[in-house]
Amino acid sequence: MTNYTAPIEDMRFTLDEIANLNDVAALPGFEDATPDLVEAILEEAGKFGNEVLAPTNRNGDEQGNVLENGVVRTANGFKEAYQQYWEGGWNSVMFDPEYGGQGLPWTLATAIDEIWNSANMAWGLTAILTKGATEAILAHGTEEQKRTYCEKMISGEWTGSMNLTEPQAGSDLAAIRAKAVKEGDHYRISGQKIFITSGEHDMVENIIHLVLARTPDAPPGVKGISLFIAPKFMVNEDGSLGDRNDVRCTALEHKLGINGSPTCVMSYGDNDGAIGYLVGQEGMGLMCMFTMMNNARLAVGLQGVGIAERAYQQAREYAKERVQSKAISSSETGPSTIINHADVRRMLLSMKSQVEAGRAMSYFAATHIDRAHKHEDEKTRMASNALVALLTPIVKSWNTDMGIEVASIGIQVHGGMGFIEETGAAQHYRDARINAIYEGTNGIQANDLVGRKVARDGGTIMKGYIAQLREFEATLSAAGDEFTTVSKIFTRGINALEKTTEWLLETNADAPNLVAGGSVHYLNLAAYVTGGWLLAKGALAAQEKLSAGEGNAEFLKGKILTTTFFFSQFVCQAESLGEVFMDGSGTIMEMPEDQF
Amino acid sequence: MTNYTAPIEDMRFTLDEIANLNDVAALPGFEDATPDLVEAILEEAGKFGNEVLAPTNRNGDEQGNVLENGVVRTANGFKEAYQQYWEGGWNSVMFDPEYGGQGLPWTLATAIDEIWNSANMAWGLTAILTKGATEAILAHGTEEQKRTYCEKMISGEWTGSMNLTEPQAGSDLAAIRAKAVKEGDHYRISGQKIFITSGEHDMVENIIHLVLARTPDAPPGVKGISLFIAPKFMVNEDGSLGDRNDVRCTALEHKLGINGSPTCVMSYGDNDGAIGYLVGQEGMGLMCMFTMMNNARLAVGLQGVGIAERAYQQAREYAKERVQSKAISSSETGPSTIINHADVRRMLLSMKSQVEAGRAMSYFAATHIDRAHKHEDEKTRMASNALVALLTPIVKSWNTDMGIEVASIGIQVHGGMGFIEETGAAQHYRDARINAIYEGTNGIQANDLVGRKVARDGGTIMKGYIAQLREFEATLSAAGDEFTTVSKIFTRGINALEKTTEWLLETNADAPNLVAGGSVHYLNLAAYVTGGWLLAKGALAAQEKLSAGEGNAEFLKGKILTTTFFFSQFVCQAESLGEVFMDGSGTIMEMPEDQF
Repeated sequence: MTNYTAPIEDMRFTLDEIANLNDVAALPGFEDATPDLVEAILEEAGKFGNEVLAPTNRNGDEQGNVLENGVVRTANGFKEAYQQYWEGGWNSVMFDPEYGGQGLPWTLATAIDEIWNSANMAWGLTAILTKGATEAILAHGTEEQKRTYCEKMISGEWTGSMNLTEPQAGSDLAAIRAKAVKEGDHYRISGQKIFITSGEHDMVENIIHLVLARTPDAPPGVKGISLFIAPKFMVNEDGSLGDRNDVRCTALEHKLGINGSPTCVMSYGDNDGAIGYLVGQEGMGLMCMFTMMNNARLAVGLQGVGIAERAYQQAREYAKERVQSKAISSSETGPSTIINHADVRRMLLSMKSQVEAGRAMSYFAATHIDRAHKHEDEKTRMASNALVALLTPIVKSWNTDMGIEVASIGIQVHGGMGFIEETGAAQHYRDARINAIYEGTNGIQANDLVGRKVARDGGTIMKGYIAQLREFEATLSAAGDEFTTVSKIFTRGINALEKTTEWLLETNADAPNLVAGGSVHYLNLAAYVTGGWLLAKGALAAQEKLSAGEGNAEFLKGKILTTTFFFSQFVCQAESLGEVFMDGSGTIMEMPEDQF
Repeated sequence: MTNYTAPIEDMRFTLDEIANLNDVAALPGFEDATPDLVEAILEEAGKFGNEVLAPTNRNGDEQGNVLENGVVRTANGFKEAYQQYWEGGWNSVMFDPEYGGQGLPWTLATAIDEIWNSANMAWGLTAILTKGATEAILAHGTEEQKRTYCEKMISGEWTGSMNLTEPQAGSDLAAIRAKAVKEGDHYRISGQKIFITSGEHDMVENIIHLVLARTPDAPPGVKGISLFIAPKFMVNEDGSLGDRNDVRCTALEHKLGINGSPTCVMSYGDNDGAIGYLVGQEGMGLMCMFTMMNNARLAVGLQGVGIAERAYQQAREYAKERVQSKAISSSETGPSTIINHADVRRMLLSMKSQVEAGRAMSYFAATHIDRAHKHEDEKTRMASNALVALLTPIVKSWNTDMGIEVASIGIQVHGGMGFIEETGAAQHYRDARINAIYEGTNGIQANDLVGRKVARDGGTIMKGYIAQLREFEATLSAAGDEFTTVSKIFTRGINALEKTTEWLLETNADAPNLVAGGSVHYLNLAAYVTGGWLLAKGALAAQEKLSAGEGNAEFLKGKILTTTFFFSQFVCQAESLGEVFMDGSGTIMEMPEDQF
């Protein structure tokens, strides 16, 4: 019932035809990313996901994690799977060979990570946090820090954790109270951190905590916060493990989902203070953190895709097996499999098309991370960097909301069986819910989009993006008759995006609450247009291949049908979302608080 | 954190100004339903809900039910609460005094039931099922059956259960295999039933099971199915309990939510066959069942309202307490309560306005049940009956989808805390999910609406309903300037409903899959227009009171603001939904099955 098979054919199609992996592979340093290697790596990743990781997903949910004497015991199979992951070199795919990485494209790593997210999202979190911590040290740490910590974090021998949240400081990190007092070449850290993913576990020998804390006499607010490395075990000069640091997991949270992932309460400095090493400069902690947080946001967006793909696969299999009532168009006597009922098909296509749009957006954003890192031309690097910044809140928010919705539809397709935990569909619905919350709630993403990403530069990046969409609009409108519907809806979508962007820019200075209050709608509008654009790009490529008699004809036709469905169910809502964005928030601030 | 306070002021407003309870109270037989009595009853129900029931909600979720030796032990406080419910006469409110009921309006009972659903939805299910079973016997049973079973079911001394589903027969009841063999004045029933809510529990002495089963030599399909009464304990002539019947609970389901409600696997006839008494005639089982199922569907729609109200209250309280970051419009120094952030306010208003729309629809539908039962004029009774039939799938589906969405937003308002089970927000999200599935999945509701309720009579009832909306449109457009936005959007909504209804009628005969595949969108369009209509009716009443200087001015202004928000966020989507309905399903049946 809860099998998973990595959708390699669709991933390849998305990489090749939508994300243009070939262009990425042509960037300097990516010479190894040949089509054959990509194929081989995806196949191997698929095997690992299908055969090793996917079967542990239920264990994690049912057994959770157990805290005993400060040690967190993960669910059956988690440690063994992690061992294989490390040995298989899966953690190092996109890291710099200078520190032991394989130097492959971020885009390829994204496709691989999708598999871990589908196979066992809770398990996969440890690697996401490790990558985030590694990136922060690579970007802001000293060479010694990189050698001491990053090499083993990249190989997968050690994991990392990000220690930001405190009870009074969630979205508002300015409110952090944890303290760091300088003592020679290090600091002594004390305080409590909550919601720390993989803060403690039994899968590896050492855990490298990145911690935000406040130095004495530092200014209040964000400028007083610094970032520190606090390893679980101190690291000797020869790389061997030394003393246990004064940081411990004191409790595990009892959560709605991702029960396989240990969400820890971490206590720093119960004795002498945890030893921590400054990363970057004092007072720059939040800035250092945000370097990695953008990529972590994309990683969470990808979790939305992963969980949605798994929920879709499960619902699809059930719908092909379950027999109930005769379908309207059935020519058989007797009842039909439920996939033949129109409303069930609508649900499945709604899942499938949204998963594919989300996948396309995640992979596409990844290609621009690669360009931003590797392109020879500085202007191109900067443009890609800006595009990633623009797309990050869109991908994070829409993909994770989509993950929740698709998981919910997955339950619905199962009918009553979906509500029974043994079926497994309910786990996806519970697991998916966190993605809209962590790494910046989706509301914060929407505010980030309208504020930092669009209004701040007077819409320059967004307008450039719209111009890029207009170029494709011309191509699409010149395509054959089978694209008439798609083309018309796409034009309406871009028009809506342009119109709402103008309104946003005009309105934000004088009435920022109107913009902020409707920002999720603007974000969703931008997501539909972006997802539609990328799916349509794939559909045109599919049409071309069909005309040339290349490829798997049924699969390619399916791509065109799925794209048409996505446009006529979702992208066509762009204008309506635009209206809600511009006209819907007028009463929000007028309502007196005591009337809520 | 998980407190609940029955929203009496809003319930009264909805009853008085939107549902016109006074008109209902003027129907023959409802003379007792004076405003004072209604007020007193709601206050008492509120007390029971707030103080007795609400505190048991968490117990039910955490402890669930335990099956030992065929006995199901409910969670702490469930039995005691049920005892008080029975003794308080809460079960008998709207039943016929002939059988011990209080003969009060269904509309009032609906408001009261909302409280139970908010306070403890899982606990409240037993009463919903009991009412359904009672109605079926009252409508189709013999006088002796009514006296023997209904009196004690109405008083609340005994409960009822509905035994329909079998593993192969979920939505498709034609596939039922349970057998009933005639033996003198009774039948012997054997077979397995699954998903039986309150099929076994320890709250009362006897449980009256209504069972669908197939008689030997009966024709295949639905015409071979009959309905039987199979009490847990046989009832002696003097009303005392006799032998244990041959029906037992053999397992409890492990579910995503409503863990306080025992969902039983029931085994009939493991020994000699369970003794059952035919209700109505052989072969008429499904028809008898559907009499009660329509009302059960409305009851489930009301569960959506109840759970949404509770989720809203919890999120609202959190948003008023939690302090994070300075709000855009804050004139204070330092961080603000999160209710002052525009996006959080949008979420709260989205919850509040949808709850109020759902409440209005549920109460309004109930008034037409009262009219259908009690109005002196047969034509009016029939018209009300038809309107209830039309509204039932809309209320069931939209209100339950809304309950899920609102519970999900409730988590989001809490941020990370929402994902922690102790907070309680997650329970609502898990509990709410079942409502879209049971008593006919929401997909089945949508197909019921387009097929049985609109297409079958050539749109007569729907067109009559639209004409009723048009009358209000005229009133609304003549209202003051503060209603301009609402009025314009309402007109667009009715136009969309009319246009899509025409399209539905034209298309259904030749392309029924197009209609069925898009039916959920048509249903949601109808729901937005209906919810908008009722809220706007309330807003006009509020405006009138304000002009007259009557009532609580802040509350009344809040009603107008909430209505405006609902229109400019939801009703304005009607045209877009109409487009998706008419144009969105073209590719659904074209996609080859193996491309899913």
